[in-house]
Amino acid sequence: MVGGGKDAFIGGVHRIASRIDGEFTLVAGALSSTPDRARESGIALGLDPDRCYGSYADMAQAEAARDDGIQAVSIVTPNHMHAAPAIEFLKRGIHVICDKPLAATMEQAEALAQAVRASKALFILTHNYTGYPMIRQARAMVAAGDLGKIRLVQVEYPQDWLTDAAEQSGTNKQAEWRTDPERSGAGGAIGDIGSHAHNLACFVSGLKVESLAADLQSFVPGRPVDDNAHIMLRYSQGARGMLWCSQVAPGNENALRLRIYGEKGGLEWAQEDPNYLWFTPFGQPKQLLTRAGAGASDHANAVSRIPGGHPEGYLEGFANIYTGAAAAIRTAQAGQTPDFDVLPGLDEGLSGMQFIAAAIRSSQADAAWVKL
Amino acid sequence: MVGGGKDAFIGGVHRIASRIDGEFTLVAGALSSTPDRARESGIALGLDPDRCYGSYADMAQAEAARDDGIQAVSIVTPNHMHAAPAIEFLKRGIHVICDKPLAATMEQAEALAQAVRASKALFILTHNYTGYPMIRQARAMVAAGDLGKIRLVQVEYPQDWLTDAAEQSGTNKQAEWRTDPERSGAGGAIGDIGSHAHNLACFVSGLKVESLAADLQSFVPGRPVDDNAHIMLRYSQGARGMLWCSQVAPGNENALRLRIYGEKGGLEWAQEDPNYLWFTPFGQPKQLLTRAGAGASDHANAVSRIPGGHPEGYLEGFANIYTGAAAAIRTAQAGQTPDFDVLPGLDEGLSGMQFIAAAIRSSQADAAWVKL
Amino acid sequence: MVGGGKDAFIGGVHRIASRIDGEFTLVAGALSSTPDRARESGIALGLDPDRCYGSYADMAQAEAARDDGIQAVSIVTPNHMHAAPAIEFLKRGIHVICDKPLAATMEQAEALAQAVRASKALFILTHNYTGYPMIRQARAMVAAGDLGKIRLVQVEYPQDWLTDAAEQSGTNKQAEWRTDPERSGAGGAIGDIGSHAHNLACFVSGLKVESLAADLQSFVPGRPVDDNAHIMLRYSQGARGMLWCSQVAPGNENALRLRIYGEKGGLEWAQEDPNYLWFTPFGQPKQLLTRAGAGASDHANAVSRIPGGHPEGYLEGFANIYTGAAAAIRTAQAGQTPDFDVLPGLDEGLSGMQFIAAAIRSSQADAAWVKL
Amino acid sequence: MVGGGKDAFIGGVHRIASRIDGEFTLVAGALSSTPDRARESGIALGLDPDRCYGSYADMAQAEAARDDGIQAVSIVTPNHMHAAPAIEFLKRGIHVICDKPLAATMEQAEALAQAVRASKALFILTHNYTGYPMIRQARAMVAAGDLGKIRLVQVEYPQDWLTDAAEQSGTNKQAEWRTDPERSGAGGAIGDIGSHAHNLACFVSGLKVESLAADLQSFVPGRPVDDNAHIMLRYSQGARGMLWCSQVAPGNENALRLRIYGEKGGLEWAQEDPNYLWFTPFGQPKQLLTRAGAGASDHANAVSRIPGGHPEGYLEGFANIYTGAAAAIRTAQAGQTPDFDVLPGLDEGLSGMQFIAAAIRSSQADAAWVKL
Repeated sequence: MVGGGKDAFIGGVHRIASRIDGEFTLVAGALSSTPDRARESGIALGLDPDRCYGSYADMAQAEAARDDGIQAVSIVTPNHMHAAPAIEFLKRGIHVICDKPLAATMEQAEALAQAVRASKALFILTHNYTGYPMIRQARAMVAAGDLGKIRLVQVEYPQDWLTDAAEQSGTNKQAEWRTDPERSGAGGAIGDIGSHAHNLACFVSGLKVESLAADLQSFVPGRPVDDNAHIMLRYSQGARGMLWCSQVAPGNENALRLRIYGEKGGLEWAQEDPNYLWFTPFGQPKQLLTRAGAGASDHANAVSRIPGGHPEGYLEGFANIYTGAAAAIRTAQAGQTPDFDVLPGLDEGLSGMQFIAAAIRSSQADAAWVKL
Repeated sequence: MVGGGKDAFIGGVHRIASRIDGEFTLVAGALSSTPDRARESGIALGLDPDRCYGSYADMAQAEAARDDGIQAVSIVTPNHMHAAPAIEFLKRGIHVICDKPLAATMEQAEALAQAVRASKALFILTHNYTGYPMIRQARAMVAAGDLGKIRLVQVEYPQDWLTDAAEQSGTNKQAEWRTDPERSGAGGAIGDIGSHAHNLACFVSGLKVESLAADLQSFVPGRPVDDNAHIMLRYSQGARGMLWCSQVAPGNENALRLRIYGEKGGLEWAQEDPNYLWFTPFGQPKQLLTRAGAGASDHANAVSRIPGGHPEGYLEGFANIYTGAAAAIRTAQAGQTPDFDVLPGLDEGLSGMQFIAAAIRSSQADAAWVKL
Repeated sequence: MVGGGKDAFIGGVHRIASRIDGEFTLVAGALSSTPDRARESGIALGLDPDRCYGSYADMAQAEAARDDGIQAVSIVTPNHMHAAPAIEFLKRGIHVICDKPLAATMEQAEALAQAVRASKALFILTHNYTGYPMIRQARAMVAAGDLGKIRLVQVEYPQDWLTDAAEQSGTNKQAEWRTDPERSGAGGAIGDIGSHAHNLACFVSGLKVESLAADLQSFVPGRPVDDNAHIMLRYSQGARGMLWCSQVAPGNENALRLRIYGEKGGLEWAQEDPNYLWFTPFGQPKQLLTRAGAGASDHANAVSRIPGGHPEGYLEGFANIYTGAAAAIRTAQAGQTPDFDVLPGLDEGLSGMQFIAAAIRSSQADAAWVKL
Repeated sequence: MVGGGKDAFIGGVHRIASRIDGEFTLVAGALSSTPDRARESGIALGLDPDRCYGSYADMAQAEAARDDGIQAVSIVTPNHMHAAPAIEFLKRGIHVICDKPLAATMEQAEALAQAVRASKALFILTHNYTGYPMIRQARAMVAAGDLGKIRLVQVEYPQDWLTDAAEQSGTNKQAEWRTDPERSGAGGAIGDIGSHAHNLACFVSGLKVESLAADLQSFVPGRPVDDNAHIMLRYSQGARGMLWCSQVAPGNENALRLRIYGEKGGLEWAQEDPNYLWFTPFGQPKQLLTRAGAGASDHANAVSRIPGGHPEGYLEGFANIYTGAAAAIRTAQAGQTPDFDVLPGLDEGLSGMQFIAAAIRSSQADAAWVKL
């Protein structure tokens, strides 16, 4: 693991997610950009001190040289530190599981893309919301035509944690780097959560955004990046949509919500209650489909662990990405080409970067339509 | 009453709403544009045959001449038939309670506006959703600063009843006139329900829309008006928002929903569950405020009839407009100027017409920003 | 109307409910047991002073003697004052619409029953919750076998308004008479709301309670009647159930909720969200049936006024009893026997009295089983 | 691990739960009572073949003899096979983490209790629902007096998976042993899920059941154990309650729900939406307390892994029991007495057995009150 030392949020998530299905064991790390801190964090996690590295470069070199070196690395650093370490490991044939977005800048993203294409190692991007069982089912239902031709894709991801200038409090590291364009990239809310919303909408609908008109705002004085984004979307095949993401909407924790409507029916899903999928065949009563319960399909059941009514959550959805990664790595090790059908990788990463860039460009042009 | 004969939907609503608090009695009507049908409908409702008129013009003339003539008239015709009868009654000093929107065209709206300004009689527009008790409370909370400075106003009104080409079935009169620009006006969804959403957002937030960028769609082949609208909004005082209305979103009946976020807190309300108002003071737990129950304020209680936990609905909210109209008429009869603070009238009507026109103009210009 | 003067709650409800469908006009009243107050209240409601009576006895006599005397009377007094006035009007052939429960004591109930049986006039008891459209549908679904043979009937009605000793505050008339066995009858919660729950469960399930075991409590010191009741029920045809009612459960306003389970499916309904009925055919997804919307049957639509998604509430459900009463009166006037299939009357009243008595007797015997 | 081979449900749950926080590694097992199957299952899970035992007795003996033998064992067999293996391991000083209920019979339970008391090793019983963060918070809130003196404890646990005679299908092993009194114990629903409900109610309320009156039913023909239970409860300190559990209530998956009401407020929690705790201080609006979010206390946060709005589920709650067990084991290893304040162990197990026995005894005596 690269990144994920003390005070980090997402590193701990990756560690649990990688562990849930018993597919990965953490054996080495460069857990901080500060060497002492990296070592300390590693030892606190029970790593062999010899495999607590002071930098990702040392780690890549040393692990590649070991007979029992790591097979895969998780990169859980702030966005501007995704590409460089990923490239370093990919070069050495070590599979990379990287937090999203792909990078802080398009240049970094492109350099990483080249490295992915040049490597035999796999690159997985943890767009974790696509790991939820009912999201897998929703995607399959759309693909099977249960909704008919898609007309509308409404997606939103409101939060409230940056309602105040938390980044100026001096005590909130998360807020600091996520509102710092040097580390986070040019997008604030749009990069952090808007990219998740975009990814989820495309994943389920099977559509691509062809153009968008975005109105980004930065409501908190002194904040150099957006903390709210309003976007109108034109999807492939004539579908239309809206995307709203916000970090300044009091009363919302991680209220990611997707609604898709077609000629024959509609689907609704909310991340905070992820075991439920609401399906309305037009003209009939709304149905509550539950994970591993009534109305759950094979697509959901394949990534469920326990019966319906016993909720699975965020960590299990995240684990489905890790377990999918493990399966892909095994396929690659067997000399075959892994299936990236539901597993997010480079394509999703580049698409996300284009989405962020287009939203910023549109907003700078007073919400003019920008093609992706 | 003008309009509201057999097969009409909104006429029956007005009749019940006017009756709930015992403030109005229906005594005369021109209930259809077809004289025979008008008479038949009137008799079916128990009216004196002498006061069942074949046309609104006859009715206005005859009632104005009677000693016991009507004091107020409800106009519940399709949109293109709002202005002409309203003008006729206003000219004769008869108060007008008119269904929304104000008119089908801006020309009609302006003629009506002149008539309103020239008359001593009152003009009330039934933007009924503003009559819900918890909406009255929400407005008062925003005005009192409970949310701090408003940043975001997210409003949506999805329906599904026009998912198919119901207007071509030959059996759905509602669908026919509401998708016919001659009778409905140039706006389809935007005129019918978008105008409600716009009105509600302004009512509660106390803000005005300064400009908008709209992307209207007509998804059903052959439909000459929009059946879905995506709109980004710039409100006064720097607030931003989105409005979505749709008639083609399966699984939505009348899912009007308003969310307002400010520097200090957020409010959420949904028309289908109107007795609940969710209030989150930033950093504190979300609170469930209930009509006439815990957390209800005087603003809500003043327009409630029964204790919390016994739900009031659409008809009671509508009745609050009628009862407000009755109070205003009494004030006017007493020679004083009625308060249109919460009672919707000409200003709301004109604002709605401008909103519809701006949305259509913006959409025709590929979602360019249009000022209101 | 008898009772329902100032400070009364249920009188106002009856007045609105009787007005909603335009079937009744209030023309006379003995609105209080204090003659002056009765007259004052009547005049405040706009009654002809000649028809504001100082006592129900005067009213019955005078109205029966008038050519244009009332056809029906609403009795909305405290429970101990139901039977005497009802008998007085029935004797004179005036139809009676009476608030529940039937009476405060079994003796009163039996006297009233005799009067009902002896009179040509009708007796309707406002078990208003059975007027909700989705309850009508639920009953019809059970009767049609959609749930298969019924096994379980779980019903509850928690409130919180008597959590404190409100009856000792000196300012809460409702609390005073409802906790006073002289006026309310021997049952507190069990009489006021338990009887509603019992009635609703029987109405929907089509079953009768054969025996019960009840544990009643009075949690608030000094309260002479129960404020909480726990009851196990054995229904006809082998079904079992539980009934919980409480006035001391903070966070509950009028949380009447019914769940019925059979061999083939289940139904759930909650009074605070009455436009929804949840139906689960065993092994299939739960379905949301909405009033006048998707999945609504003729039984619901027959007593609905407006389309789905525009909520109807308590007053409309109550109005359905009044409108049903009007239909029954018309039938009787036509010389035919009205259908009391869904309209609550004497049978429901007697059944409720037996239920209350049995619950009290069981509780006094330490929750021994008592047959009804 | 003892038990938990192929086709088992709860074994997999224990394995994941033990892994989530990285506190346990599975190294040995007697995963089935059939030696071949036990070995096969162990190898499929990646165990060293030498540590795949054919019986729990072999395993206890062999592991106790190894220098690197297991420190703790999970017992996840059907109920009748809890006590014997637990005793075997406890005798050898190996800590036992055992699925609930304690045993199938009171004799087994007492033998096990003796073994626990005689052993230096710890005994933890996985009453996993008490591991949910908001349940920990609820318990602390009650203890802190936030609800005042407790009056009412309403708990229910309906399911629907045994609505049909699934145990007779020949393909449902779970249904087979859980309805077989030889393996499950005399209680059916009451033992499987009623005991969970009882445990949860006591855990949160801090009260004990002093007596109960139970009416158990077996609705499915040929089923030798109860599939539905109605129980009235008298708790310590004058509190009262009801418990309903069912396996024949269509539309319920694992709808465990707890509501507690005191003189000053009420709490509500539902297992299927476990990140939410509803708190109503009497007379104030209901508040939504969210795990790791607004209103979450230290008690909840201490057992949370990720921020509010990212749901944790059943497995994380279960993991909190395992992680608590790990902490207790460390404490014991340090020569100190572990705190079983929130960690369930022998006392909870015995209390559960008494509850089941009392319910059966009461039901056999026609729901007479039985003391615990």
